[in-house]
Amino acid sequence: MKWYLETGPEGSVVISTRIRLARNIADIPFPCRMTKEQSAEVIERARAALFGSDLSGKFDFIDMQKLTPARAMSLSEKHLISPEFAANREGRGLFLSKDESVSIMINEEDHIRIQVMLPGMQLEQALKQADYIDDQFDEKLKYAFDENLGYLTQCPTNLGTGLRASLMLHLPALEESGALNNFIAAVSKLGLVMRGTYGEGSRVNGSFYQLSNQVTLGISEKQAIDDLTAVAKQLINQELEAREAYRKTGAVFEDKVWRSFGVLKNAHILSTEECMSLISNVRLGATMKIIDIPLEILNEIISEVQPSTLIASAGRNLDSKQRDELRAKIVREKLVGL
Amino acid sequence: MKWYLETGPEGSVVISTRIRLARNIADIPFPCRMTKEQSAEVIERARAALFGSDLSGKFDFIDMQKLTPARAMSLSEKHLISPEFAANREGRGLFLSKDESVSIMINEEDHIRIQVMLPGMQLEQALKQADYIDDQFDEKLKYAFDENLGYLTQCPTNLGTGLRASLMLHLPALEESGALNNFIAAVSKLGLVMRGTYGEGSRVNGSFYQLSNQVTLGISEKQAIDDLTAVAKQLINQELEAREAYRKTGAVFEDKVWRSFGVLKNAHILSTEECMSLISNVRLGATMKIIDIPLEILNEIISEVQPSTLIASAGRNLDSKQRDELRAKIVREKLVGL
Repeated sequence: MKWYLETGPEGSVVISTRIRLARNIADIPFPCRMTKEQSAEVIERARAALFGSDLSGKFDFIDMQKLTPARAMSLSEKHLISPEFAANREGRGLFLSKDESVSIMINEEDHIRIQVMLPGMQLEQALKQADYIDDQFDEKLKYAFDENLGYLTQCPTNLGTGLRASLMLHLPALEESGALNNFIAAVSKLGLVMRGTYGEGSRVNGSFYQLSNQVTLGISEKQAIDDLTAVAKQLINQELEAREAYRKTGAVFEDKVWRSFGVLKNAHILSTEECMSLISNVRLGATMKIIDIPLEILNEIISEVQPSTLIASAGRNLDSKQRDELRAKIVREKLVGL
Repeated sequence: MKWYLETGPEGSVVISTRIRLARNIADIPFPCRMTKEQSAEVIERARAALFGSDLSGKFDFIDMQKLTPARAMSLSEKHLISPEFAANREGRGLFLSKDESVSIMINEEDHIRIQVMLPGMQLEQALKQADYIDDQFDEKLKYAFDENLGYLTQCPTNLGTGLRASLMLHLPALEESGALNNFIAAVSKLGLVMRGTYGEGSRVNGSFYQLSNQVTLGISEKQAIDDLTAVAKQLINQELEAREAYRKTGAVFEDKVWRSFGVLKNAHILSTEECMSLISNVRLGATMKIIDIPLEILNEIISEVQPSTLIASAGRNLDSKQRDELRAKIVREKLVGL
């Protein structure tokens, strides 16, 4: 089963945890300065390292050059790779675990980017998994590492631990109450950053936010995780309180949840934006027992209705109108019997 | 069964037919000039005439003074009496048939107003029924009648036949296409009038329109009915053509119908205006086999969700918010299993 079809700890607010480690091989230039041959060599050495370890059977290797643009973008929509990695696929490779919880980008901004995703709030567990994978590479490859700076990365913002830890949070009640903007401003003063997970630019689709650490230099992995956890716990509590306040509006709240469900279940045209917003409302209702619908189904819908994922699964190009119709059809099918 | 729970001929466009005859008793002044004693006398003479006829067992007599304002307004919302008759109930009485298809207002603007409503397009049938009732009164009472003018009525616009024939039409596609305003202008030149059936002032709720004759003087009952029928047939054809054109929009049309159904079935707050608009969309979809839902259920909902009808059935006063919640609850219950 794909990791994102499950819910994890604090699942009513925390959709998922993501850990990313940035690593580079010492005797090869950073990707932006590599020759073709060097990029092929990085892929070969990474393959040898991973497939020579006890993790061998758990991963598939994907030659990015062989993917269609839609399939590559679909991986990006699932947060398995970066949009930039999807757009420029030459000389790049990807290791993907069967359950899609672990993805290792080769020759993205850095030679190796190890990413682990788990449902719910599981920062320590995800870091442990990432560290184990990191150890396998470390045994076979000589990492670019400096006694004072730590892991060397192409972009200075990743120097040190090379760790980016993120939580995907569902914060509809804080958004509705208007308190969210204050939180966004506050977390930035604590060395963290919060931004929308879906949607382009400043438009946030469906109240899904990503909270990440920013500081990688002069701080241990553990400290980074602890700081993020402390802030996340506060956000979770505030969101849960705001939900209870929202519940007190009675019919107003129920109306929003049930209407959203009614439209999702019956619409024949759904834009990504509207779909995410409706799912957000239904998810909120489900976590508050207003409506009986498994969160896993909502997670599944979210993962399947993103634009490029739709095109990839249709196997042919779809314009915006066709996507909106297919999206509505998929959603209706997922909700049959509910 | 109440008449409005059935559908009749041309039921996809014509919701109902209404015939109204205005009559006055010769030796008693018009209602606006009557004494209390005279209004009581009109009621007594009408009772004696009707209950002395073979229609006796078919009617209940309602002393309007004994009704609560909400119950009276509810009768008006069902088009059984005029809003003015509901508002001022002193010295007024109502005969109502068990199936609510016939209502006879005593001491409205005229002494006697006979009204027959039937589902679908049934002008001749409704006129026949009204004429039969008219004959029963005519046998016992001396009507105010002038050889040249015909039946005398308080308002000169009813002089002559005293007949007002109306069709309640559902014209969502003509409304959507923007062609409706031209029709409204055109019918007025043909001695007819078309206006919204639900909603106040110029706001029309749910694309329901009433088409009525205006001319009562120098024209026979038959001619009035024939003129109305000819125009109605044209309107029906135009509406059906517009619906087929609308069907060609495919998903756009289906989306509108199904979303409306989804919201109706799930909302916890529904204003009269939104409710009528959603029902209008679903009704359109049902007549075009986009959605399988009996028109009778939609007719039933329309009759039950009007503001005063809600208050009357709740048996206590409800503010606008409470009505919107009760309305949504009733609609959800009616749509269970659909």
